[in-house]
Amino acid sequence: MSATAYPFAKGHGTENDFVILPDADGSTHASLTDDRVRALTDRRAGIGGDGILRVVRTDATDDPAAVAARGAATWFMDYRNADGSVAEMCGNGIRVFARWLVDHEGVAADAPVPVATRAGVLEVTVDADGRISAEVGAPALTAASSVAVDGRSWPTTGVDMGNPHAVAFVDDLADAGDLLAEPAYDHDVYPRGVNIEFVVRRGERHVAMRVHERGSGETRSCGTGAAAVMVAAALADGAVPADGSAPAEPVVYRVDVPGGELDLTWTPAGTVVLTGPAEIVAEGSATL
Amino acid sequence: MSATAYPFAKGHGTENDFVILPDADGSTHASLTDDRVRALTDRRAGIGGDGILRVVRTDATDDPAAVAARGAATWFMDYRNADGSVAEMCGNGIRVFARWLVDHEGVAADAPVPVATRAGVLEVTVDADGRISAEVGAPALTAASSVAVDGRSWPTTGVDMGNPHAVAFVDDLADAGDLLAEPAYDHDVYPRGVNIEFVVRRGERHVAMRVHERGSGETRSCGTGAAAVMVAAALADGAVPADGSAPAEPVVYRVDVPGGELDLTWTPAGTVVLTGPAEIVAEGSATL
Repeated sequence: MSATAYPFAKGHGTENDFVILPDADGSTHASLTDDRVRALTDRRAGIGGDGILRVVRTDATDDPAAVAARGAATWFMDYRNADGSVAEMCGNGIRVFARWLVDHEGVAADAPVPVATRAGVLEVTVDADGRISAEVGAPALTAASSVAVDGRSWPTTGVDMGNPHAVAFVDDLADAGDLLAEPAYDHDVYPRGVNIEFVVRRGERHVAMRVHERGSGETRSCGTGAAAVMVAAALADGAVPADGSAPAEPVVYRVDVPGGELDLTWTPAGTVVLTGPAEIVAEGSATL
Repeated sequence: MSATAYPFAKGHGTENDFVILPDADGSTHASLTDDRVRALTDRRAGIGGDGILRVVRTDATDDPAAVAARGAATWFMDYRNADGSVAEMCGNGIRVFARWLVDHEGVAADAPVPVATRAGVLEVTVDADGRISAEVGAPALTAASSVAVDGRSWPTTGVDMGNPHAVAFVDDLADAGDLLAEPAYDHDVYPRGVNIEFVVRRGERHVAMRVHERGSGETRSCGTGAAAVMVAAALADGAVPADGSAPAEPVVYRVDVPGGELDLTWTPAGTVVLTGPAEIVAEGSATL
């Protein structure tokens, strides 16, 4: 490799995948350009990933979110979408980020790890079984609406998890078709677009879903989508208060996504916690 | 990484991409299982690639193709398709393979490098400008036919490059549509399926193409497809004998593919040589 090679790793959580850029002291990627992000996330000319997780200490970057978190969190998750744009948070991403901290940066796994993000400082926990749990935010119910595929339509539950979701219960996940095109939805209800989940019941407090992500198409997993699906299912089941307020006791649902299995917990504190596998599959040096 | 980590690299030629497994002495991947190939080429749970290039010395593997090549070639390209199946050859793959040999295995770049493949020993050359040239075989003309997309049809030139191709000249590459579905073709002419190329002229001995690869869908590049397109264009232009026999002098066409630019040379020896960029973008260790 040339003199400009720098370290990277590849990891995923339920097949939502990321290029990890270790940059503890902020010196390697002080300027992480959109072009470099796109080159790294390109699945054919680069490494490939849904996004980038730059791992930098909060005291080693001037990002306002990191500066604000100094004292509360040692590490900042500088998350970038594959197109180079800055993103606030990613529920599967922060779980992979925590895996990296514990496996490679000497962070202790016996207590919750505070991680600075552009959505604030969030706690991530490495569970005894090796899975990783992360808060993905507090749900807010939004207007009911409907979505349609190939002329068939279904009513939807509206859930905002920081981003908008429309959740449709279907008889069979195949009813959603190939999802190559975006399902039809009401643009008056969702003027900035919407993430659309199709859900089937698999058992008590156990559902399976597919998701069409706004701007990305069908994906193998979506943390906020799984959270929205859990919220919609818990409401439909009467497992939580009908007004969408937090339950008195934690309510747990298993949500199967195409890329694996997740557990979603709606806590009395009002936030939804995403639990699932997160692994690092390769590491090395890149010249992109 | 765990104790089972092994080295890998990622490279591509015009965005036809590969996971490279350095295994000079044949000890690391003496048994390269289909499961491991699929895990490595998985674009989300693994590294991602169109195929695997295992780099092993001909005297360090019992593969019959390597054994037969001992004395004629030091290195064997053990090529696997992403699904784990064994493949004979890959025109972009062997160019990336040669890049690895020259950059990392001490192979001299000042003379043609013989590489053992399941299609025989093939010569690869590192050109002065850094591009890499590889023989992709001798063309054979096959029956004319036609292909259709969305009810429009075009006549095709049939070219066999070891695998079957149907080449259609179109007015605009957008005429082929989104190529999400396989174009319609005559199953009596191509009982085992066919790779379909759509071609537009860009200038003198310069064309651009899109390809729908049998079993893979639209891809960013296809070495044998570019060769078939060059053959069809040279025949249409009268640049070579009309019976498809080798030209008296080398005939060169530039063929633009979605992933980059290739030069194709039909040589007096009767073979078509593929020339283009090949680069290694990352290397490291994997645990897949």
